[in-house]
Amino acid sequence: MGRDYQRMVSDAVRITELLCRQPSVSAEQRALDETADLVEELLAGVGFETQQLRAEASAPAVYGERRGRSDFTLLLYNHYDVQPADPLDLWESEPFEPTVRDGKLFARGTSDNKAELAVRLAVLRALLDEEGELPVHVKWIVEGEEEIGSANFDAIVRENAALLRADGALWEGGAARLPDGRPDVALGFKGMLNVRLDVTALATDAHSSLEAIAPSAPWRLVQALASIRDRDGTVRVSGFYDAVVPPTDAERAALAAASDSDEDQLRETLGIDRFDDGLTGAALWERASFRPTSNLAGFHSGYGGPGIKTVLPAAASAWLDFRLVPDQEADAIFELIRAHLEREGFSDVEATKLGAATPAKTPLDDPFVRRVIDVAEAVCGEPASVTPLAAATLPIVASFRDHLGVPGLSAPDNPFYAGSNAHAPNEHIRLEDVEPALRFTYELLRALGSA
Amino acid sequence: MGRDYQRMVSDAVRITELLCRQPSVSAEQRALDETADLVEELLAGVGFETQQLRAEASAPAVYGERRGRSDFTLLLYNHYDVQPADPLDLWESEPFEPTVRDGKLFARGTSDNKAELAVRLAVLRALLDEEGELPVHVKWIVEGEEEIGSANFDAIVRENAALLRADGALWEGGAARLPDGRPDVALGFKGMLNVRLDVTALATDAHSSLEAIAPSAPWRLVQALASIRDRDGTVRVSGFYDAVVPPTDAERAALAAASDSDEDQLRETLGIDRFDDGLTGAALWERASFRPTSNLAGFHSGYGGPGIKTVLPAAASAWLDFRLVPDQEADAIFELIRAHLEREGFSDVEATKLGAATPAKTPLDDPFVRRVIDVAEAVCGEPASVTPLAAATLPIVASFRDHLGVPGLSAPDNPFYAGSNAHAPNEHIRLEDVEPALRFTYELLRALGSA
Repeated sequence: MGRDYQRMVSDAVRITELLCRQPSVSAEQRALDETADLVEELLAGVGFETQQLRAEASAPAVYGERRGRSDFTLLLYNHYDVQPADPLDLWESEPFEPTVRDGKLFARGTSDNKAELAVRLAVLRALLDEEGELPVHVKWIVEGEEEIGSANFDAIVRENAALLRADGALWEGGAARLPDGRPDVALGFKGMLNVRLDVTALATDAHSSLEAIAPSAPWRLVQALASIRDRDGTVRVSGFYDAVVPPTDAERAALAAASDSDEDQLRETLGIDRFDDGLTGAALWERASFRPTSNLAGFHSGYGGPGIKTVLPAAASAWLDFRLVPDQEADAIFELIRAHLEREGFSDVEATKLGAATPAKTPLDDPFVRRVIDVAEAVCGEPASVTPLAAATLPIVASFRDHLGVPGLSAPDNPFYAGSNAHAPNEHIRLEDVEPALRFTYELLRALGSA
Repeated sequence: MGRDYQRMVSDAVRITELLCRQPSVSAEQRALDETADLVEELLAGVGFETQQLRAEASAPAVYGERRGRSDFTLLLYNHYDVQPADPLDLWESEPFEPTVRDGKLFARGTSDNKAELAVRLAVLRALLDEEGELPVHVKWIVEGEEEIGSANFDAIVRENAALLRADGALWEGGAARLPDGRPDVALGFKGMLNVRLDVTALATDAHSSLEAIAPSAPWRLVQALASIRDRDGTVRVSGFYDAVVPPTDAERAALAAASDSDEDQLRETLGIDRFDDGLTGAALWERASFRPTSNLAGFHSGYGGPGIKTVLPAAASAWLDFRLVPDQEADAIFELIRAHLEREGFSDVEATKLGAATPAKTPLDDPFVRRVIDVAEAVCGEPASVTPLAAATLPIVASFRDHLGVPGLSAPDNPFYAGSNAHAPNEHIRLEDVEPALRFTYELLRALGSA
């Protein structure tokens, strides 16, 4: 196309490095205000009207907008916060000193998701340089609490719904290129319900001989948990599946086409011979996408050291996360679990809701989805991989749906790949993935402006 | 009786202090040889022929014997090792510097069971002083591994069965006086089977979204455990109860008479409103004595901190102890558990036997039992409290039964009381309990010699 993508790449990498020097770890409340100010300055630098939005006690979300040539309003979402860097001793270079090695840029936050923010910014600069205006109206919100669950983001969106109204949204991105070369699009994410169960049976740990006559906290918790889920993984809580909407035939077909060849790689990483029920291929990924989970993230009680300690533990606790699919509602599911425990005679098991996110997806046949996919396929020269519902969770998606009603997706504008070590030591992007991300973003903005 | 018990009390306290200055912590392999040598010297001091017995790699057991006037041979059992002293900061005086405060002698090992050893020694000295000979043959074995499960003691007894043969045995003691003034006799102890269950489902912890398609170690372990035991505490392992011999009417009656008034105190300590099934009185203590337990001493897997971590844990482990009643055999029960897991489809749950002790008791109508009880009641002026089967475990009892066939019991020759803090900080004996322990021991030896 003759456009100066090399300059855009240099721009994007430089902005990524600038952002990644900020240790904006939300879990540690580190450098959040400084990074918000930096992001606001970068947006102001491309002529955005900016402000910082907050809900009570939240880290600031940076908001900016700039009018463009056409009436189409595009809403961009990013987050400037990152995961903690520890364990530090596993990093080969300092996590907050961006370092290029072997064609890769290493730093905490590169792939999740400061490089995507930088790609979008570099494209906006290039468009303004070339044409003096943007092809579409752009609204951009960059929050600072994504890595701790976006707990305040829903309130921010609700309170600023009029400001944020748009015709289409790009969420945090998928991968610019899958291993087979296809661009990666995701239209929805599972919800989440985090529950802690606690049993306190005794005032103090006791001699284990007393188990003959006194209640056992860990046994009560084992039995409460066993009542919640069958051996085959089916949740036994009455009503749990009532709101589940099965995938449409079109979603099934898209998912089958999206299924790539990571299957062997994933089995190897997990060290397993087979997935549950021996599933493979499309059936496996359909299960991963459309089955709500009931994960037991932790269980702790009593002794856990070498040898023997004959103790009757006073207390036991379990940490669960349920990943929900449309149209399961986290709060409603929590009440079903509470009712289940009560009905099954486990009123001694205390349930606490630690977190809740609603599942949400944009329909496969939404016109905005179609336009994004068309651009991605034109730029890439490959059919897109379209995931109707991803197995992971992105709480902001439900906020956008519920308060703005805006169709959105995760687009291939992120120089991320499966080996990026997001959330892990030695997080990085491959420099070769920056240009495809830029090309897609540039062409999408032009296409949306000319429609 | 005019005998000089004050001198015996001084002797016993001085010997207790001497023994308690040795930090003979078997779990830490501390001072075991030194303490064995000291015990051997003390036995030699009352004219015993002594030697040290060992099984492979064991701490030495001190053995001594001295012939007496009658043909009756009495076997005494003690241990010179003690529990670790930590947490040290909860002690009000140094654990290995015996200290008298408020009529109590504080030191690790006083009540369990160096004072009992000292009482027996003081009585033997007094008898030799008075009569120049002992009324009965006395054999005495003092091991150094009781607090770590007497793992080598069975081999020592088996290999030295001819040496140890006797007509009656006094095991480690009960209490010289219960709160209501009665002397305390125990005729048997539960056995024990310690099992660790491990599930390793994945090579590494994984993102919790993968729970939709990959196996979960903690759920597998929860379900394996739930298969082992019903909600009402009944063990579901086929054959588990087959060998259980219910208590005889005489044992039930003895147990009902033995039941003292600790019930309210115990409920208060445990912080519970009621015991299992609302049991009280004789029914409660019969459950405590004669019901085998299936205790879950520990369960650990995955996350256990504040807030949320959405992890699919790679592994999960549980620590169980089963307290067994006659005639359950620990090794056989372990095989039943393995077979149960296999049959129920839990071949991914690895069972490891961490320890095994056989339950054993001396019959209530054994003539040796009768003689001991008669002496105890005569000395004390109160009916004895006779426990046919104690809820705790004393592995040596089965070794004596299996290899020597000698009837035995825990006698009221121990200056121990319920508040002694055995195994806990500030372990102590009340000095007022030494004399009743001495009186009983003195009169028992004379009675056995004159029969």
